[in-house]
Amino acid sequence: MKQAGIATVANHESAVDDGIDAGVDFARAALIALDWGTTSLRAYLFDGHGRVLATRASAAGIMNLPRSAAEGGFDAVFDDVCGAWLERAHGVPVIAAGMVGSAQGWLEAPYVETPANADALVAGIVRVTAANGATLHIVPGVLQRGELPNVMRGEETQIVGALSEDADAAHDAANDAAHAASSTCSLIGLPGTHAKWAVVQAGRIERFHTFMTGEVFAALREHTILGRTMTTPDRPDTEAFLRGVNVAREKGQAGMLATVFSTRTLGLTGELPGEAQPDYLSGLLIGHELAGLEAVLVLQQSSLAHQSPRLIGNEALCERYRLALAQFGCLQAQLVKHATERGLWRVAAEAGLVNPSARARSAG
Amino acid sequence: MKQAGIATVANHESAVDDGIDAGVDFARAALIALDWGTTSLRAYLFDGHGRVLATRASAAGIMNLPRSAAEGGFDAVFDDVCGAWLERAHGVPVIAAGMVGSAQGWLEAPYVETPANADALVAGIVRVTAANGATLHIVPGVLQRGELPNVMRGEETQIVGALSEDADAAHDAANDAAHAASSTCSLIGLPGTHAKWAVVQAGRIERFHTFMTGEVFAALREHTILGRTMTTPDRPDTEAFLRGVNVAREKGQAGMLATVFSTRTLGLTGELPGEAQPDYLSGLLIGHELAGLEAVLVLQQSSLAHQSPRLIGNEALCERYRLALAQFGCLQAQLVKHATERGLWRVAAEAGLVNPSARARSAG
Repeated sequence: MKQAGIATVANHESAVDDGIDAGVDFARAALIALDWGTTSLRAYLFDGHGRVLATRASAAGIMNLPRSAAEGGFDAVFDDVCGAWLERAHGVPVIAAGMVGSAQGWLEAPYVETPANADALVAGIVRVTAANGATLHIVPGVLQRGELPNVMRGEETQIVGALSEDADAAHDAANDAAHAASSTCSLIGLPGTHAKWAVVQAGRIERFHTFMTGEVFAALREHTILGRTMTTPDRPDTEAFLRGVNVAREKGQAGMLATVFSTRTLGLTGELPGEAQPDYLSGLLIGHELAGLEAVLVLQQSSLAHQSPRLIGNEALCERYRLALAQFGCLQAQLVKHATERGLWRVAAEAGLVNPSARARSAG
Repeated sequence: MKQAGIATVANHESAVDDGIDAGVDFARAALIALDWGTTSLRAYLFDGHGRVLATRASAAGIMNLPRSAAEGGFDAVFDDVCGAWLERAHGVPVIAAGMVGSAQGWLEAPYVETPANADALVAGIVRVTAANGATLHIVPGVLQRGELPNVMRGEETQIVGALSEDADAAHDAANDAAHAASSTCSLIGLPGTHAKWAVVQAGRIERFHTFMTGEVFAALREHTILGRTMTTPDRPDTEAFLRGVNVAREKGQAGMLATVFSTRTLGLTGELPGEAQPDYLSGLLIGHELAGLEAVLVLQQSSLAHQSPRLIGNEALCERYRLALAQFGCLQAQLVKHATERGLWRVAAEAGLVNPSARARSAG
């Protein structure tokens, strides 16, 4: 569910694409970590200090296996992506997060319930032995019960990665102020196909929302009348995007089912050319997402303007969210880089798969 | 745009299906009227008193022509549907409303702007001569300018049909009370692919909203993860539908992009079986539509609870809307039958195509 939430590891792109591990000192390998989602898989090889030695990427998400699970599809992908590493770093522990732990994954890791911290995730780890003898430790997702239940798989590990900055800061400073800061509520946003917004406190995921923003955008563009007049712009049209955000933010509008139709009617009246329509629609949907989040915050005596959210995910998409958040008076949003690999390292450390005293240093 | 808004004329169904006009007294024929939309076409043969003598139906909407417009596609369909009537009732006038007057239709009838009454529609009629010599009078759609423009084509004629009841009542009673009633604001809803809600006053369409409810439902069901766990129920699940309506009505929810995801998560937690999920999602979307309409009404110092809306369209769908409206305290919603043919007759009468003193009597 976080196809768009995979952090880019720019320094390793050539190694990823070519699958070449030239120059990697396998004697230092301490952990293989997998971010295995619906449509893709990314693998990280860590040293004992939490530094990334090499990465691999594959399009073999759990819905894209080369053959079925019953026919060994998971084993085949795992061997393809990590087999060479395991041969040269035999016995290195393996951790995995994401949809690989869903009911449609390799082995189901039942959800742990909110409030959930890293300890709870560790307690929920399930183990599966691959055909090549390696044991995968699969991190569970998180479930929030209630009238409108919510689920995440993969994002919980990214959130732990973002929070590991706090833990590091608290550890380094070891003073009361830092501990106090980490015990207040804060907001973490994970834009994407199914965007998540989580409220975290003292290292725990307290509650969260899911917004189907990315998937609804694709469905509206590809499968409704709105797509018929759209053309693809040469570059993102920020003005059209912000126009959409501000329409969604207005109190006088009649809701998303009504505002989206203006993508078409502004075209019919000559006020929005076809190449501006995709960004306008994107702005409308992200604006409605943030307006919905704002409504929930206001009920809790808060507001986006009083928050300093952290954003995890694709950098260009996070930048769009930063611009949209500013329209809501939220000027302190910050991108957290390398949250995925930091989170995988942190959970592995908490689980005792690597030396827990070696704190994550993978981020630049 | 009103594929789901075509009224059923039960008494004539056999004639429609078979294309048999047995028993029709063509000497009494006074008007052929076409409701020609995107995906279908319905034709009515009226006598001089506005009574429907016969009907024909075709799937040849303007996006379903047997051959292109340039190759005479419109002429071919018109001849197929109405040719036999015209041979036996030569020279009878022909009127048409709907997407046939759009830029993609037979001849574009430019929109008239709000506020718009029947006189304005008549003034905007365009004429096209068919290959068989008949002249089609095409009724224009209505445009509302503004930050979020709105358009309708076909619904304006149905609204005129619904309002013709008021005109009849005023004419029959000829008293001040009836005139006063027709000069207050009232609400007309047209559920469907692109649902419309119009505010009418003194026979004029003052303003209106479009909600892409039907099309978004289809896109979510067929092209997102929500459809994967859905099954088709044997009969509508009213309980699941109302559950969805009430979730959308709640102040504490985070908006439509968030609530729709509960269709899936309630399934994951065993609280909503697959066969209840389509009606739940339908309830969510119709609930969000009505919540959006309510927000606009509240800004205008009104509310759904103080309205007695008239509903035009498919009877089963209008009944769902009536149930949903009741959740908003709106208990006076009423279905208007035969609005399409009444509206076509009324516009034709106002245009002088038929004797304007003969008022519509098509409804039973």
